[in-house]
Amino acid sequence: MNKINVAILGATGAVGQRFVHLLEGHPWFEVTALTGSDRTVGGTYGDGCRWVLKEPMPSYARDMPVMETAPGLDASLVFSALPADIAREAEPAFAAAGHGVCTNASAHRMAPDVPLLIPEVNPEHSALIELQRRNRGWSGFIATNPNCTTVTFTIPLKALDSAFGLKRALVVSMQALSGAGYPGVASLDALANVIPYIGGEEAKMESEPLKLLGHLNGQGVVPHPASLSAHANRVAVSDGHTVCVSAEFEGNPGPEQAEAALRDFRRPAAVADLPSAPCQTIELRPEQDRPQPRLDRDAGKGLTTVVGRVRPDPLFGLKFVCLSHNTIRGAAGGSVLNAELLVAQGWVK
Amino acid sequence: MNKINVAILGATGAVGQRFVHLLEGHPWFEVTALTGSDRTVGGTYGDGCRWVLKEPMPSYARDMPVMETAPGLDASLVFSALPADIAREAEPAFAAAGHGVCTNASAHRMAPDVPLLIPEVNPEHSALIELQRRNRGWSGFIATNPNCTTVTFTIPLKALDSAFGLKRALVVSMQALSGAGYPGVASLDALANVIPYIGGEEAKMESEPLKLLGHLNGQGVVPHPASLSAHANRVAVSDGHTVCVSAEFEGNPGPEQAEAALRDFRRPAAVADLPSAPCQTIELRPEQDRPQPRLDRDAGKGLTTVVGRVRPDPLFGLKFVCLSHNTIRGAAGGSVLNAELLVAQGWVK
Amino acid sequence: MNKINVAILGATGAVGQRFVHLLEGHPWFEVTALTGSDRTVGGTYGDGCRWVLKEPMPSYARDMPVMETAPGLDASLVFSALPADIAREAEPAFAAAGHGVCTNASAHRMAPDVPLLIPEVNPEHSALIELQRRNRGWSGFIATNPNCTTVTFTIPLKALDSAFGLKRALVVSMQALSGAGYPGVASLDALANVIPYIGGEEAKMESEPLKLLGHLNGQGVVPHPASLSAHANRVAVSDGHTVCVSAEFEGNPGPEQAEAALRDFRRPAAVADLPSAPCQTIELRPEQDRPQPRLDRDAGKGLTTVVGRVRPDPLFGLKFVCLSHNTIRGAAGGSVLNAELLVAQGWVK
Amino acid sequence: MNKINVAILGATGAVGQRFVHLLEGHPWFEVTALTGSDRTVGGTYGDGCRWVLKEPMPSYARDMPVMETAPGLDASLVFSALPADIAREAEPAFAAAGHGVCTNASAHRMAPDVPLLIPEVNPEHSALIELQRRNRGWSGFIATNPNCTTVTFTIPLKALDSAFGLKRALVVSMQALSGAGYPGVASLDALANVIPYIGGEEAKMESEPLKLLGHLNGQGVVPHPASLSAHANRVAVSDGHTVCVSAEFEGNPGPEQAEAALRDFRRPAAVADLPSAPCQTIELRPEQDRPQPRLDRDAGKGLTTVVGRVRPDPLFGLKFVCLSHNTIRGAAGGSVLNAELLVAQGWVK
Repeated sequence: MNKINVAILGATGAVGQRFVHLLEGHPWFEVTALTGSDRTVGGTYGDGCRWVLKEPMPSYARDMPVMETAPGLDASLVFSALPADIAREAEPAFAAAGHGVCTNASAHRMAPDVPLLIPEVNPEHSALIELQRRNRGWSGFIATNPNCTTVTFTIPLKALDSAFGLKRALVVSMQALSGAGYPGVASLDALANVIPYIGGEEAKMESEPLKLLGHLNGQGVVPHPASLSAHANRVAVSDGHTVCVSAEFEGNPGPEQAEAALRDFRRPAAVADLPSAPCQTIELRPEQDRPQPRLDRDAGKGLTTVVGRVRPDPLFGLKFVCLSHNTIRGAAGGSVLNAELLVAQGWVK
Repeated sequence: MNKINVAILGATGAVGQRFVHLLEGHPWFEVTALTGSDRTVGGTYGDGCRWVLKEPMPSYARDMPVMETAPGLDASLVFSALPADIAREAEPAFAAAGHGVCTNASAHRMAPDVPLLIPEVNPEHSALIELQRRNRGWSGFIATNPNCTTVTFTIPLKALDSAFGLKRALVVSMQALSGAGYPGVASLDALANVIPYIGGEEAKMESEPLKLLGHLNGQGVVPHPASLSAHANRVAVSDGHTVCVSAEFEGNPGPEQAEAALRDFRRPAAVADLPSAPCQTIELRPEQDRPQPRLDRDAGKGLTTVVGRVRPDPLFGLKFVCLSHNTIRGAAGGSVLNAELLVAQGWVK
Repeated sequence: MNKINVAILGATGAVGQRFVHLLEGHPWFEVTALTGSDRTVGGTYGDGCRWVLKEPMPSYARDMPVMETAPGLDASLVFSALPADIAREAEPAFAAAGHGVCTNASAHRMAPDVPLLIPEVNPEHSALIELQRRNRGWSGFIATNPNCTTVTFTIPLKALDSAFGLKRALVVSMQALSGAGYPGVASLDALANVIPYIGGEEAKMESEPLKLLGHLNGQGVVPHPASLSAHANRVAVSDGHTVCVSAEFEGNPGPEQAEAALRDFRRPAAVADLPSAPCQTIELRPEQDRPQPRLDRDAGKGLTTVVGRVRPDPLFGLKFVCLSHNTIRGAAGGSVLNAELLVAQGWVK
Repeated sequence: MNKINVAILGATGAVGQRFVHLLEGHPWFEVTALTGSDRTVGGTYGDGCRWVLKEPMPSYARDMPVMETAPGLDASLVFSALPADIAREAEPAFAAAGHGVCTNASAHRMAPDVPLLIPEVNPEHSALIELQRRNRGWSGFIATNPNCTTVTFTIPLKALDSAFGLKRALVVSMQALSGAGYPGVASLDALANVIPYIGGEEAKMESEPLKLLGHLNGQGVVPHPASLSAHANRVAVSDGHTVCVSAEFEGNPGPEQAEAALRDFRRPAAVADLPSAPCQTIELRPEQDRPQPRLDRDAGKGLTTVVGRVRPDPLFGLKFVCLSHNTIRGAAGGSVLNAELLVAQGWVK
């Protein structure tokens, strides 16, 4: 097939750079435009971008001009790495102008007619695009991926919810510095320290999973009836969010049953054929001290969720630890996977 | 009064060094003997000890001989920083020989006739010493302080339990490297990483608080009827354990009520006069991003517990974060405070 | 004596906070005014300042109003923690208005009529104030302390220069994050990394020591004739600059002679009586792996320079490692010590 | 061609693991045996090895038996990751038994008839193997690669020496934790700290480069006549050694000339065809704050040396910073490259 032209909005920031990196040599997508802030517009990407990834800047991007973030780019799909406040206005403008917007921004995630998608969890929620187009008169669309911590624990909760039925869960995150963007957290605050607070994070961790695990009816998504509680912490890790989970399920499955459900979790058939889909959605580690961000964040090129320490919980029945790469699975990689799903489902022409 | 002669068992290890440091110039205690492993016995402390604290080695200790860990030292009280497996045999031998043993080791904490003490929480539990002496025919005694993470969250739970009645709590720790002793955790494992496992820690965190919050009856301690669940993690912090707590209390107090109970918590009168007792047992921080180990571990010279982010929890009613210094409040400093309490109560002649 | 009223310019930044901390309870100085940026002027210090030191904010400062940085404050002496570009204009205005300015800013350090002072190294250079007043018609003055890395290696070089005569030295720094202020270095750049560049630092390290080690003649300071070369690196350390030094002296002294000269270094008599002067100007460590920032930065309350590993150098004759606390000896503490010297010498009325 | 059977001696340690990783799927070599310490002999590699690399353990190794470190393995070539003290005896035994030994151990590096090799620097030194066989009556051989820090700065010095003639150099390293093996440095010593000492390192850094840059005559290697001085430091970095270099060359070339020589450096023709040889031997970064370990250690899959900040030095003429991956270029990867060279040169049958 011919490649689909895509643009990256907010390409000079930390998440934007990850899009630039992940779309290098993509089999379906051809990056035709990069946008940035006023400071960088007009120059080349190589000049305007303070590259912070350890992977080198792809050569395709170096000489591309940085353009203004405004509709009319030569791109059927746009990937948005915009800050939430800018995304709030800009993304609808792009969708109205006929672009399909796959966004990592939080601005529209919880809107009733906007799909919040993890391909392995709720690919059918893309049907909300029809409602969205009807409601808003758009020819394009907005589709969102969840918060970087939400996705880490929602994937294993999906596997267990499918098997047993989730009743409630308490999640405590230890989040990497890259989740705060660049320059992000001051090194004096981060080094050899824990910051037990991330603005807005706990509310997202308590609401987004219920939409992701919910089911469609004619009007939209009926949220999952489970109850969630979240604590969010920042730790001195560069990449990879670790989450401790205590969870209660119908019928109180034991650790062996839970491990079997995690191991046997089958993603929807449509997902297996997406070019970025990892071999394993969930990797179950047998060691008692895994997952660890240093060792496990790159599993499945950063798209596999690693789970370990499945054990009994005196209060909830089950405890475990899960981890995924926050700027890949939790941000740009999640958006790219969503875009691939939407192409496969026929939402992008 | 004349000072009481004290010895430090296992004085060359990381916790032993903290005892050496905290007992420098102590108004009640005079260090008369230091013991160490076979490798170091016979030499001076200055030669045998690889000092790892950032405070310099006190000059009083430098030329003291390192002695064998065996009863008969010139000391009414001995502070034990022995590893649990050695403590199991050695501490009873000292108690049988008439020494009062204040130990940081876990070996005897849960024995029914051994007090597990935090002076601010359960000073009356020292009465178990009588039972212990009766049971075992000892003239000395063993008194223990809890695990370094247990103490961090048990102090605020005590304040809240006294006010409202604890029903259940889920606690997740982010623990400092010094808790693993020296050399302890390999730097390649620790740097820019999280290790979501600490051997034996979660079991201690789930059992010790119930003994600490329990009440005496004629036969021993009746554990508190609450239920606890714990997750333990190691993070790249030198000192200071941070604990996220979700807890449910009778009558579902709100955050303001809980903050009032924490602020108004009054330690037992006897404790205020102990020389090491901090001005504040609990310090409540108003900032939304505190406590943090870098900023709060030294509160009250490492003996104050710092609490912050008291807020509603969708599952349990209340969430908060607490922190204390793991090698001071959580180890040597806790033992010294226990010893002061036992002297004040008349258990040490 | 009555205390001298002093003000702190730029009191809300990282160095300004250190001044606020070090002047708490100072025996000679009474802080009467704090100045800050436009954003903070008008509010209280407690409200306007994002406190980043681990020592708590002194209570005296909390309710003081933040004032504009302009002459006319009720203060004979002002301590300047201003950024260099603001200091360039503001400090002369203060000096012209009769204030004595003790500044940590680099703006005026190398001006021929401005003393660059380390009390233990060149207290007689304060005589430049007379030249300065004559040149500029000021009733006040500006006196400067050197760059935080310069001071670390200039103090041991002074001891060795006095004993043997310095010919040349090559210095390589490994500098702490706090030297970059707050927020300063991004945590993603700092964590588990080395940044081999600090803007402007090497030029300061190559020029300032020669002024400090120079001698006065009628017209000003004749720089020391030695040659210097510097490499500056940023490492993941919170506080404490470490410097590797290779140096050549007249007569090629060996390590034992050099150690003797470092050990026997006597600061000028006038300095010993200054209230902030540390007991030891230089502490020589015998261990082969010292100094280390974690263990040695707080020597002499952050004002002692710690030296170790004095050994032969195949190219220069001598190698050693030195370390001092960059925000105490290297910034605010150095300015306070300078101010004490200038008071003792009678420059402040 | 048929693959050559190779063994890895000391395969369970940190460097041994890197050999296991780098030899996965190697086009010329087939791993037929792994040896380990007594503790692990008899079990499988997967059971006996505490894997510490972030790349997963290759599946080929998991079920291989761990064998005793003794000659007679089915392998023409053996890669040695043995500790120096064990290597001293074991490696000659292997060479005597007909195995070609490519070792990362320091034991035999400076022996007059043992080649110390960097393929890009001195491939002709392999001719020493003939002398070695004559001297010792061996049918096999020992060939060594240099210390991990030596290789970092010797490669750029080679380029500059070839162009201008090296006179002297002063080098200061900031070395990664993985250089100390596993468990290696204690995390309490490493975190947020600098340790200005690494046992034996400076002597290696001052002697090995002169052998590497020396020339062969009939009797052996005539060392390069330059003089070197070294300071070695450990910093809180996981992988990647950074070295600050000040160097003097004949004719005092300026930075532009030096950059040209680094950019134009051509490795010997034979090296370009080795399967592990990186595309670029030296990568010159134009940014003023590079190289950095986080960003540059993986250049050329860890086999490229990255150089930056070439600038004038007031004492030596030139300063620069260089960096390479200490466990790849500086250890296992260097040995593999040496083995490939020796195969290409016909030393391995």
